[in-house]
Amino acid sequence: MRCTVEMLSIGNELLLGNTVNTNASWLASQVTSAGGTVTRITTVADKLNEIAGAVKEALRRKPDFLITTGGIGPTFDDMSLQGVGRALGRRLKVDTDAVEMIRAHYRRRFNREFIRLTKPRLKMARIPSGATPIQNPVGTAPAVLLKVGRTRIFCLPGVPSEAKAIFRTSISDAIRVAAGGKTFTEKWLRVSGIMESVLAPIIDRTMRHWPGVYIKSHPRGVEAGVRPHIELHFSTFSTTPKSARRAVGGAVSEMKERLRIRGAKVSLAHAGLSS
Amino acid sequence: MRCTVEMLSIGNELLLGNTVNTNASWLASQVTSAGGTVTRITTVADKLNEIAGAVKEALRRKPDFLITTGGIGPTFDDMSLQGVGRALGRRLKVDTDAVEMIRAHYRRRFNREFIRLTKPRLKMARIPSGATPIQNPVGTAPAVLLKVGRTRIFCLPGVPSEAKAIFRTSISDAIRVAAGGKTFTEKWLRVSGIMESVLAPIIDRTMRHWPGVYIKSHPRGVEAGVRPHIELHFSTFSTTPKSARRAVGGAVSEMKERLRIRGAKVSLAHAGLSS
Repeated sequence: MRCTVEMLSIGNELLLGNTVNTNASWLASQVTSAGGTVTRITTVADKLNEIAGAVKEALRRKPDFLITTGGIGPTFDDMSLQGVGRALGRRLKVDTDAVEMIRAHYRRRFNREFIRLTKPRLKMARIPSGATPIQNPVGTAPAVLLKVGRTRIFCLPGVPSEAKAIFRTSISDAIRVAAGGKTFTEKWLRVSGIMESVLAPIIDRTMRHWPGVYIKSHPRGVEAGVRPHIELHFSTFSTTPKSARRAVGGAVSEMKERLRIRGAKVSLAHAGLSS
Repeated sequence: MRCTVEMLSIGNELLLGNTVNTNASWLASQVTSAGGTVTRITTVADKLNEIAGAVKEALRRKPDFLITTGGIGPTFDDMSLQGVGRALGRRLKVDTDAVEMIRAHYRRRFNREFIRLTKPRLKMARIPSGATPIQNPVGTAPAVLLKVGRTRIFCLPGVPSEAKAIFRTSISDAIRVAAGGKTFTEKWLRVSGIMESVLAPIIDRTMRHWPGVYIKSHPRGVEAGVRPHIELHFSTFSTTPKSARRAVGGAVSEMKERLRIRGAKVSLAHAGLSS
């Protein structure tokens, strides 16, 4: 059972390049750990037509999950829910549960009973009809869940701490179940003293021996002033952790052997997140 | 004259979440500085159909530039050029200029005249027919330029130092010219003591007074253990730097005044890249 997940990152700051899309990589790593396969990440501006267009395109590809981040706050340019609504032909309406979540948030924050629900505050409770608001454990704007055909659409805030909290409490397990308990296993090798063009056929051969194991080479180190080297990433999805470890372990051992014959230096590595 | 730029990031590591897409944000910030508008960033896997599909979709939106990163190296899963070729119905063929670039790279690297052009090395010279290879000043695989209708497609390597070097030497000026000398101006304000829901209508009003200036609020600081605050980003594209600075400066002054009346603390800020 393959559980496919698309992500839609919404925010001008990502297209201006003044914000690195760490939400996408964090969510992708979590989805992968839960056994899901991220098939595409799309970033668009805070523009109604852009958002609606990207949502429609994603739904045409029928992923199991579509996770949007950003654009559900109180300001005029938070228009993700409106964009999703337009893509689905659904109007926004004030959801009473969402209103209660927002009220409760401000009550805790101000420590008082009466909360003035100004227009910007009420805006965060306007969600597409048929959608379910989801508790935001650390911020104001509730997240939103919609089902469209086989796809579950989750709309999360763009603030990383909020997106992470909601993913952990409300999405992670759903992906785990949809993936049928598949687990993702990976290992990194650090290799030096060999060029990528020499490594290429060795990777080919090793992958043929270990079907299901994916091996990718990443040239590294020239920038940071570190000696150039290549990091090899071995990964597999498997129904049992044991068979996954056996396959990845086998491919790693074979690769080590092949590389040592050619005089390359090889060691197990923990690769960082940054490219 | 609006110069639109789409980006296509190619690489399983981005979808597995073990690599943060810093190439996309770096390129986006450079495109923005050159006066271009990044309209969409798409990330897909190292899969032929995914790449070809994403290229076709991007071309349908007719951007002035489409910049792809990743997947042009010597390994089996470097298939970006094949994907672009498939999208355009063009076969790959060995380009003699590209062969010479690759030869010259290895000659410098090994400091010897005779270079064995193995299959993986020759692979980097196989580019879509009608494409032009572009010198890679710091790595092996040449970049590639194709023109399709109004769109110039640049295919860059995924290694950040190589993508950056090629962007600087071969793309930046082309965007600057296409953008007609427009400049991008921005300023950041750091605001505390006011909530985003209270700030929302103030942003609205200020933007109405300064059309052309875009103001976006970013809630910050809860994660890092820093006191919660909001960063306001002011930006505009303009044909003269002077008019741009005047507009952004005017909007910033008005905003400061409005915020001080409400008792918020305001200071100019340099926002970092990370969200």
